[in-house]
Amino acid sequence: MSTSWFVVPEDQHNELVRKAYQHRGYHEDEAAEAARFCAEAARHGIRTHNALKALHLDHLFGSGAGGCVPGAEIEEVPSRFKGARVWNANRKLGQSVAYRAMDAAIELADEYGVGIVSVDNAFHYLWGGGYVLDAARRGYIAYTNCTAALAEVVPFGGRTPTLGTNPHSWGFPTVEAVGFPIVVDWATSVVAMGRVQQFRREGLELPPNAAVDAEGNPTTDPNKAVALLPFGAHKGYGLSLINEIVAAFIGGSLPTLRSRWAEDGEKHTPCFFFQVIHPEAMSSGAFAKGRSQAENVRAVIEDILGHGNEKCMLPGQIEAEFAKKTEAAGGLLFTEAELKGFDEIADECGEPRWDHGAFARYEG
Amino acid sequence: MSTSWFVVPEDQHNELVRKAYQHRGYHEDEAAEAARFCAEAARHGIRTHNALKALHLDHLFGSGAGGCVPGAEIEEVPSRFKGARVWNANRKLGQSVAYRAMDAAIELADEYGVGIVSVDNAFHYLWGGGYVLDAARRGYIAYTNCTAALAEVVPFGGRTPTLGTNPHSWGFPTVEAVGFPIVVDWATSVVAMGRVQQFRREGLELPPNAAVDAEGNPTTDPNKAVALLPFGAHKGYGLSLINEIVAAFIGGSLPTLRSRWAEDGEKHTPCFFFQVIHPEAMSSGAFAKGRSQAENVRAVIEDILGHGNEKCMLPGQIEAEFAKKTEAAGGLLFTEAELKGFDEIADECGEPRWDHGAFARYEG
Repeated sequence: MSTSWFVVPEDQHNELVRKAYQHRGYHEDEAAEAARFCAEAARHGIRTHNALKALHLDHLFGSGAGGCVPGAEIEEVPSRFKGARVWNANRKLGQSVAYRAMDAAIELADEYGVGIVSVDNAFHYLWGGGYVLDAARRGYIAYTNCTAALAEVVPFGGRTPTLGTNPHSWGFPTVEAVGFPIVVDWATSVVAMGRVQQFRREGLELPPNAAVDAEGNPTTDPNKAVALLPFGAHKGYGLSLINEIVAAFIGGSLPTLRSRWAEDGEKHTPCFFFQVIHPEAMSSGAFAKGRSQAENVRAVIEDILGHGNEKCMLPGQIEAEFAKKTEAAGGLLFTEAELKGFDEIADECGEPRWDHGAFARYEG
Repeated sequence: MSTSWFVVPEDQHNELVRKAYQHRGYHEDEAAEAARFCAEAARHGIRTHNALKALHLDHLFGSGAGGCVPGAEIEEVPSRFKGARVWNANRKLGQSVAYRAMDAAIELADEYGVGIVSVDNAFHYLWGGGYVLDAARRGYIAYTNCTAALAEVVPFGGRTPTLGTNPHSWGFPTVEAVGFPIVVDWATSVVAMGRVQQFRREGLELPPNAAVDAEGNPTTDPNKAVALLPFGAHKGYGLSLINEIVAAFIGGSLPTLRSRWAEDGEKHTPCFFFQVIHPEAMSSGAFAKGRSQAENVRAVIEDILGHGNEKCMLPGQIEAEFAKKTEAAGGLLFTEAELKGFDEIADECGEPRWDHGAFARYEG
């Protein structure tokens, strides 16, 4: 399926996005980090977290709703541990906190082989895959998880949503081995709530065991679906629970109260957890047939995707292919409908609208 | 369903198991570690990895088949990283290596907040949950993964098994919070190959999307099943792939050649990865309503399992309940059929058989 794209120069995109964030009160550095994140999402075809969606969510839940505090300062929580840092993010923009936390974890990994950064009082960082992908491109094994904004997922065997969609993201430095970072990145629900709403609009059935009705019974009818189920029964439930437990150890409070602001003495913020490993810190150096570490990773991947499995995809491959398309086009790719969204953003912050006719076109 | 158990004093059990391992050439310390592991498996009702199974597998794939080398020495691979260690296990008994690696990771976590130990040239450690459970009881957040002995799992979208069942195990120090360590521990296939064989014997249908036939098509007929599928489609595939990639970074070789010994210049051993985090190293110290960290974890768990979800289980709960039963009985619980298995073990190593009639009985 070929799409007719408008090619927006990255600098031009980033300038408008920066101004939009600054217009909402974010400081220059935060706005630059937000723009960088939006460009990365667009580059990799993550249209659920491009600038339009990021700014929309910021309006609904972030600076527009008191969930996120522009200009907030990250506080370092004192720690006796040399390879671990704990931050109080004070609800600073999630993308800014996540980029900085991953940088801090990389610094720790450079010295200790492994480093972790735990973040309390966070605001949603949007696309965990973006941060591990970035670290993986820079040569590191990276992992992050967070507690999702709302409790929408029913624990295995239960009937009431008390867990977030709680994503996990792993990134591996496999550019030399396979041409792009392998990124395993997904929520622990079968589908997102936005997808249920989309199925409702389109009159389609949900996949089985993805959602439950008001009585807590599985349903494939999107009109009856009120909450989500974890993927893989008890296994996905365990994976979702991990994020809640990690957050509880960090400082997160009750999941059913998350993002539901009230003066009840509870905390209502999600938590983030970041971890980076230096690949040399886990290398025995003894690879078969004199291979380098990267050559060994390539040989293993070729074995897995050989023997009749040549059509299998690697996690992160779709995003890597979109990034190639972006590179070939020479700019970020948006549809006409998306350009109209950018017009609204320009209007909001008093900037001139982009001249759609001036953009190059790209088919693909 | 109540079972009539024989109550075997733990010392008596451990003495026979130690002697059985020593009879097979294992050194005293290895035999003690093997016995400790078998007792833990029995204590928690992990009957797939109790002494009978462990010794049977050692016979088939371990010391009986050249896969495992009794008395092998662990070599430390020099590293410039302070929080990470890499070992060449030289195919030493997996249980010994795993206990020692977890101890080493705990030591690193005590100083750095987080510590990792990567192990090359390993021999199967049997039940990853046992090691993280042990670390969690001692107060640590622990994780391990390994590459499984054989490539039995087909990658998502493929037709040929090129991945191991590749388990992940996470343990959390939640004894104070909920009475036992929460342990998330499972293979990344829907079922194990042993389960397919059991379904075949019992004439039962497999669950859907658990196995494929010789053409790579999903089948619920255990007689046609030749390979396994990952749970949760692409998500379980990603989780299985993680273990292969981690192993490839450590020093593991092609998954389809694992445990298939040949003089082909490849390595044929699995790898282990261990990680421990000190819970204070991720604590912001700022828990709502003045809770301690453990009280906060309890509040979060109570929220998740409240609101109509009271019947949900926590991962690790079944094992913890079996351990309570073991404690109430005052010894390890075995069936009559299992006692006969221990008779064979006694015969093998020239020890007197246990006097079955002398054991106390326990119903439950």
